[in-house]
Amino acid sequence: MADNTEQGGSCGPDCACWDQYQPVKSGEKRNLSIYLDHAASTPVREEVVDAMLPFFTEAAANPSSMHAQGKRARQAVELSRSIVAECIGAGAEEIVFTAGGTESDNIAVQGAAKANRQRGEHFLISSVEHHAVMEPCEALIEEGFTVPRIPVNSDGVVDLDELKDLIRDDTVLVSVMLVNNETGVIQPLRAIRDIIGDRVLLHTDAAQAIGKIPVNVDELGVDLLSFSGHKIGASKGIGALYVRRGTRIEPIIRGGGQERRLRPGTENVPLIVGLAKAIQLATDELELNTAIMTMLRNRLQDGIIRSVEGAVVNGGGAERVPNILNVSFESVEGEAMLLSLDEVGIAASTGAACTSGSLEPSHVLKAMGIDRSLAIGSLRLSVGFRTKQEEIDTVIPVVKDVVLNLRRRTPPGLQEG
Amino acid sequence: MADNTEQGGSCGPDCACWDQYQPVKSGEKRNLSIYLDHAASTPVREEVVDAMLPFFTEAAANPSSMHAQGKRARQAVELSRSIVAECIGAGAEEIVFTAGGTESDNIAVQGAAKANRQRGEHFLISSVEHHAVMEPCEALIEEGFTVPRIPVNSDGVVDLDELKDLIRDDTVLVSVMLVNNETGVIQPLRAIRDIIGDRVLLHTDAAQAIGKIPVNVDELGVDLLSFSGHKIGASKGIGALYVRRGTRIEPIIRGGGQERRLRPGTENVPLIVGLAKAIQLATDELELNTAIMTMLRNRLQDGIIRSVEGAVVNGGGAERVPNILNVSFESVEGEAMLLSLDEVGIAASTGAACTSGSLEPSHVLKAMGIDRSLAIGSLRLSVGFRTKQEEIDTVIPVVKDVVLNLRRRTPPGLQEG
Repeated sequence: MADNTEQGGSCGPDCACWDQYQPVKSGEKRNLSIYLDHAASTPVREEVVDAMLPFFTEAAANPSSMHAQGKRARQAVELSRSIVAECIGAGAEEIVFTAGGTESDNIAVQGAAKANRQRGEHFLISSVEHHAVMEPCEALIEEGFTVPRIPVNSDGVVDLDELKDLIRDDTVLVSVMLVNNETGVIQPLRAIRDIIGDRVLLHTDAAQAIGKIPVNVDELGVDLLSFSGHKIGASKGIGALYVRRGTRIEPIIRGGGQERRLRPGTENVPLIVGLAKAIQLATDELELNTAIMTMLRNRLQDGIIRSVEGAVVNGGGAERVPNILNVSFESVEGEAMLLSLDEVGIAASTGAACTSGSLEPSHVLKAMGIDRSLAIGSLRLSVGFRTKQEEIDTVIPVVKDVVLNLRRRTPPGLQEG
Repeated sequence: MADNTEQGGSCGPDCACWDQYQPVKSGEKRNLSIYLDHAASTPVREEVVDAMLPFFTEAAANPSSMHAQGKRARQAVELSRSIVAECIGAGAEEIVFTAGGTESDNIAVQGAAKANRQRGEHFLISSVEHHAVMEPCEALIEEGFTVPRIPVNSDGVVDLDELKDLIRDDTVLVSVMLVNNETGVIQPLRAIRDIIGDRVLLHTDAAQAIGKIPVNVDELGVDLLSFSGHKIGASKGIGALYVRRGTRIEPIIRGGGQERRLRPGTENVPLIVGLAKAIQLATDELELNTAIMTMLRNRLQDGIIRSVEGAVVNGGGAERVPNILNVSFESVEGEAMLLSLDEVGIAASTGAACTSGSLEPSHVLKAMGIDRSLAIGSLRLSVGFRTKQEEIDTVIPVVKDVVLNLRRRTPPGLQEG
């Protein structure tokens, strides 16, 4: 096993979960190469690579330069902005390019806080938000803001009655992700807008939504919407923030006039062009690709549920995007499943973050009120529209074997949770 | 003339400078394609494109994922970190990858301010800094900080006696760019460190220095050093910040554990790999490439000075990087020169920012005490190591023609400045 160089509090060889690790059918199936972690990152599409390439080399001027080569770069950026805008029903001047989803979320949260502090210091976020929303809010709390979390039901859907109780006259911003990254559960943004009224800013992290469900800023009723390139077939390191016309917001980095001063720095021309290409493809192919992914995900889900006793789909009762399956297995630890699957060549993920050697369940599953014993045994399998049916059919029996093998080895105590 | 879609306060067809614009020898030389704006952005090197490509497509997992594909991405990021570190004499754990020079500068300035506020609210910056340092400092001033600017001499070099007078017991950070982006003038960082002592943090923006002069963090005596990919043959949208071990600094965006929590968000694996490749090439080829660029720049400088009366090299008395020539011409307006050069296919730049229709000279040339009439007539020509000698020889007489033609048309009033 190669040494674990991960950062960000993920586990390593010192972590308890590694002790349980035993290769399953070692050697026999090791040469599989099945990627079921598309929700973590997708490969860049060939069409996107082709679109980016000229802007690395022959059209590599600075878009702020006044000469013809600079103007070519500027035109590519502005055309990309129009394409991105059109795909989500926005105006071109409402799109700000960023370095990714985390930066977009931070500009939305911190930028709205700074610009609207006179109006209030009360924000509301759901209890299942991504760290990119939770952590800037924690920083705001240190600065004196109040940021309660809206509870979710057992399927992970925001409780609208609780929202009604939490909203106040001085609430400035409500931030609820459109699709949860761990479960794929879709949140009722339109209903949230109807409850909070027009006075309150509504932000949504749509990183897991683009290309999986139709996303239209007016239909959703949002003022701010974040997303990221590398979840939709563009590169890592590029993202965008939609900012509705008239929204009061301030930049978090400063230094130039780019992106209407909201996100200065030389524009990442090649990756911006690639982002536009990717969102255009994702929008054009939405119907076909979601049909493919729905079939694959459902086949995987049904196969696992049928073959493994004590498997439960997290968020299974809610409306979900078609590519994510989050399933918990009784008496098994998620990280151990991951490692066993990895050993045979299947790339998956888990909702449960294994922090500094302790087995801590995911904050999302915790918020859904899922039993600790199930929450620590969760596995996220996320397909892409290029995933093959044979791959799904190969994975199902392997998951079964891995779970049964690990249950045989489960150390005393884990079963209690 | 295509419409001007530039942002950031650059001029457009409404600007006074456009009125003067008349094509020079229109049609005759229009098909030149000579790029002398390498200081604004350089094309990505082929070796860098080749290094990035696999990480867009077949090795596109998230480096935080626990499976083998995730580990491959993680290893690429960590190997890149070691390479970048070695090139500037740092330890791998002292390198933080960012989305570019502007973000690096912002983390350095804002991050040091937040983390050290108890120690003091006094920063010093040079009067010729990039906007990416000046603007976050202006935001700090609004928050109650004091940030005087250290004057420079007529060549643009920081006045060390003034620095001695300005430094205080509660000074937390001094930020002086290693190489000025408009003039190419090199600042005496080591001497600055000797004056300010060990107690004060020293930051430098080295965006224009890497690949042009040797850059070693210990020899410079800096605690924080920013740079950017697209000035050294890597892509736009990637940069790094060196943070000396033990330096107190806080993140400006939050949301995950990446980059030791100082710069969260999924790592831009392909562009990080490309940045490492570019800095390695720039370091390996430093001696050869600087010899080439020195020859080309000096040939260009000598040719222009010899052939155009009233041409003055800005910063010419100081030590400069080998690729930048900033030259002012009496009784000519810089933007008009740019447009005339562009018309015949020569890409150049000007230090003078033309803001909302008024002819405002660059803050750098202003700080150097250069007469307004010369400051508004500045042109920045920046070569690359692939620039050809024939290109230089072609440009010299065109610059002469452009200047002479414009002088003939100069509207009354401009000559006085």
